[in-house]
Amino acid sequence: MSSTLAGNAVIGQSGGPTAVINQSLVGCIEGLRQCDAIGKILGAHHAVRGMVDGDFIDLSEISQDRLDRIAATPSSALGSSRDKPDEQYCRDIFRSFEKNDVRYFFYIGGNDSSDTARIVNETARKEGYELRAFHIPKTIDNDLECNDHTPGFPSAARFVAQALMGDQLDNAALPGIKIDVIMGRHAGFLTAASMMARTRDDDGPHLIYVPEVCFDVDRFIADVDRVYSRLGRCVVAVSEGIHDQEGVAIATKLAQRVEKDAHGNVQLSGTGALGDHLVQLVKDGLGSKLRVRADTFGYLQRSFAGCVSEVDQIEARASARMAAELAVDGVENGSIAIQRASDSPYRAEYVRVELTDVAAKTRTLPLDAIVDGCDIDRDFRRYFEPLIGELPVIEQL
Amino acid sequence: MSSTLAGNAVIGQSGGPTAVINQSLVGCIEGLRQCDAIGKILGAHHAVRGMVDGDFIDLSEISQDRLDRIAATPSSALGSSRDKPDEQYCRDIFRSFEKNDVRYFFYIGGNDSSDTARIVNETARKEGYELRAFHIPKTIDNDLECNDHTPGFPSAARFVAQALMGDQLDNAALPGIKIDVIMGRHAGFLTAASMMARTRDDDGPHLIYVPEVCFDVDRFIADVDRVYSRLGRCVVAVSEGIHDQEGVAIATKLAQRVEKDAHGNVQLSGTGALGDHLVQLVKDGLGSKLRVRADTFGYLQRSFAGCVSEVDQIEARASARMAAELAVDGVENGSIAIQRASDSPYRAEYVRVELTDVAAKTRTLPLDAIVDGCDIDRDFRRYFEPLIGELPVIEQL
Repeated sequence: MSSTLAGNAVIGQSGGPTAVINQSLVGCIEGLRQCDAIGKILGAHHAVRGMVDGDFIDLSEISQDRLDRIAATPSSALGSSRDKPDEQYCRDIFRSFEKNDVRYFFYIGGNDSSDTARIVNETARKEGYELRAFHIPKTIDNDLECNDHTPGFPSAARFVAQALMGDQLDNAALPGIKIDVIMGRHAGFLTAASMMARTRDDDGPHLIYVPEVCFDVDRFIADVDRVYSRLGRCVVAVSEGIHDQEGVAIATKLAQRVEKDAHGNVQLSGTGALGDHLVQLVKDGLGSKLRVRADTFGYLQRSFAGCVSEVDQIEARASARMAAELAVDGVENGSIAIQRASDSPYRAEYVRVELTDVAAKTRTLPLDAIVDGCDIDRDFRRYFEPLIGELPVIEQL
Repeated sequence: MSSTLAGNAVIGQSGGPTAVINQSLVGCIEGLRQCDAIGKILGAHHAVRGMVDGDFIDLSEISQDRLDRIAATPSSALGSSRDKPDEQYCRDIFRSFEKNDVRYFFYIGGNDSSDTARIVNETARKEGYELRAFHIPKTIDNDLECNDHTPGFPSAARFVAQALMGDQLDNAALPGIKIDVIMGRHAGFLTAASMMARTRDDDGPHLIYVPEVCFDVDRFIADVDRVYSRLGRCVVAVSEGIHDQEGVAIATKLAQRVEKDAHGNVQLSGTGALGDHLVQLVKDGLGSKLRVRADTFGYLQRSFAGCVSEVDQIEARASARMAAELAVDGVENGSIAIQRASDSPYRAEYVRVELTDVAAKTRTLPLDAIVDGCDIDRDFRRYFEPLIGELPVIEQL
């Protein structure tokens, strides 16, 4: 295969925005600019939607200065989409690529995006059309196989840690029971990151519930009662994706009108229903006079401006740049995984993996990290520490 | 009155914690340390509760290094209280002060705290006991009379601005209707600060609702419809305290079991009910297929670790230090107001005002700042700019 394939490139940003998804966009542009054979570098407006409709923005001539500012801006500069392309949709994407002489395709997103890159790549191959198709990981859920962690996750984890640092001190000042609902449908990494808020014994969160284990209401009430009896307060971090023995998400049971997206996922974020429900469970179980509150971190945790992990910024940009460089060098397809080469000092490696190794699979927290169904093993701090970066100073009396 | 009154000092932190209330604590300690006549500098655990119970922590010997770290830590290091002292409660505080040879009393809090300082001061005077009693302002609601703004507000406003910056970009990437519920029972300053998230025309928040004007549901739906029709998306910032024509808070109508604190205030925060209700109103009014989401910023906006206004830190410390210095210099009582000496370059002045000028009064947004009941006048940016400080860089395609 030629390494000087001429043609245009398309970059898309899919799924939920993150604080560093524009670092990936810019890293990809920077990688592509090194190759003269590439004509235009096109951004697809609203992901696959823009690819099919031919709704592109020319990114070829943006100044480096402006690129740097775009990279530092949270959310997806190109716009995103929740469309889940089926085979026909992917054929339509391919037709549009053919029509626009697109030979390089980069799709920044989660495991569904990896699958889209794979299908478009296979469609092209069947048609004898040379196309290079790369997936560039992005997800705050941190649930992609082959990856130590995924771009977007460290910044979201940093937000969660900083939020809990403040919130558990707030709870210490005005004691009561506080429940914080954190994103994560199937994987509890982000909720587990709340453990990084602890700076002393007896700091919150005192209880952490992740979707890797079943959520039992009676057990939950007993856990809260135990902590509250001992400390006179209790801070709980809980994943939005917690579910019962049958695998039914607790949030699903509450929705008056359950809303599903194109991926068949029930809406979990953008509502306070789960948090309010858990508050009511605690009041029903332990007494209505208790001060019980819930906050649902919602979209703030993925797009907050100005709470970004430095490592995350660097890695998002570097892994995207590597995807572009591999494509330019003649590699037909792949996904770029971040692997941990060493813990201390922290060092990451970027490795090409097969699209099929990432596509439509979900990685979850290792079960041995979960303690008694309601906490995360202390050793897991080592995993989070280099990703989240230095946290604010906390000094208590 | 002697300027070398000998005795101990008590400092308390009241009401909702903020990101800089420990700056006030430390500023007060630093001011007091300059006076040799002062014996012990005591912190009251959980505010008035600790004063009555004699539950004090000795702050006299804490190293400057540790003080600096405490100052930088969010939430109330001494613990807070929601107790609203009546006359008898204040007499009990006085008895405890008398017993512990307390001659200097500093109460960091909102307008209720100013009233407590006033009553304790008057009780002491009636008993012929020389006591210096100062109120040190703190409230993210920014609702104290005589003040240009209050410590705690600039940091909370910064959080709101950064949150909206990210959130409105998130909404641009995945268009829909997004509702953000922001703290503020009677005063809309914090919700109004969301305007600072805008960096371009048509940036969100597109609609801003504050409690200074009545919230009309039909008008709200029509506003959202108008914005959504024009832009294909709509970001709404709304105060938790919005109320109907009769002055009844919308949130009150929703509470299954309305919870009130000792001040008679209905619980507004720590629940997603208002946001979820507004989502349902929009869906009922404009169509259930619309993507409508709500986030309630909750306690994050007042105690988030690592999102602090530098001006706020400096002013909280300086105004508390001034209270201590005035007390040491022989001034019997007062509250320290922050007034704006100049806008550009920004410069603040600290002014002693009477306790009665601040006590039990509420300042609200000037009505001429509110545009059409659903926005804030652009000129009001000048008010927020120096307080919030430099915001993250935003560059859009």
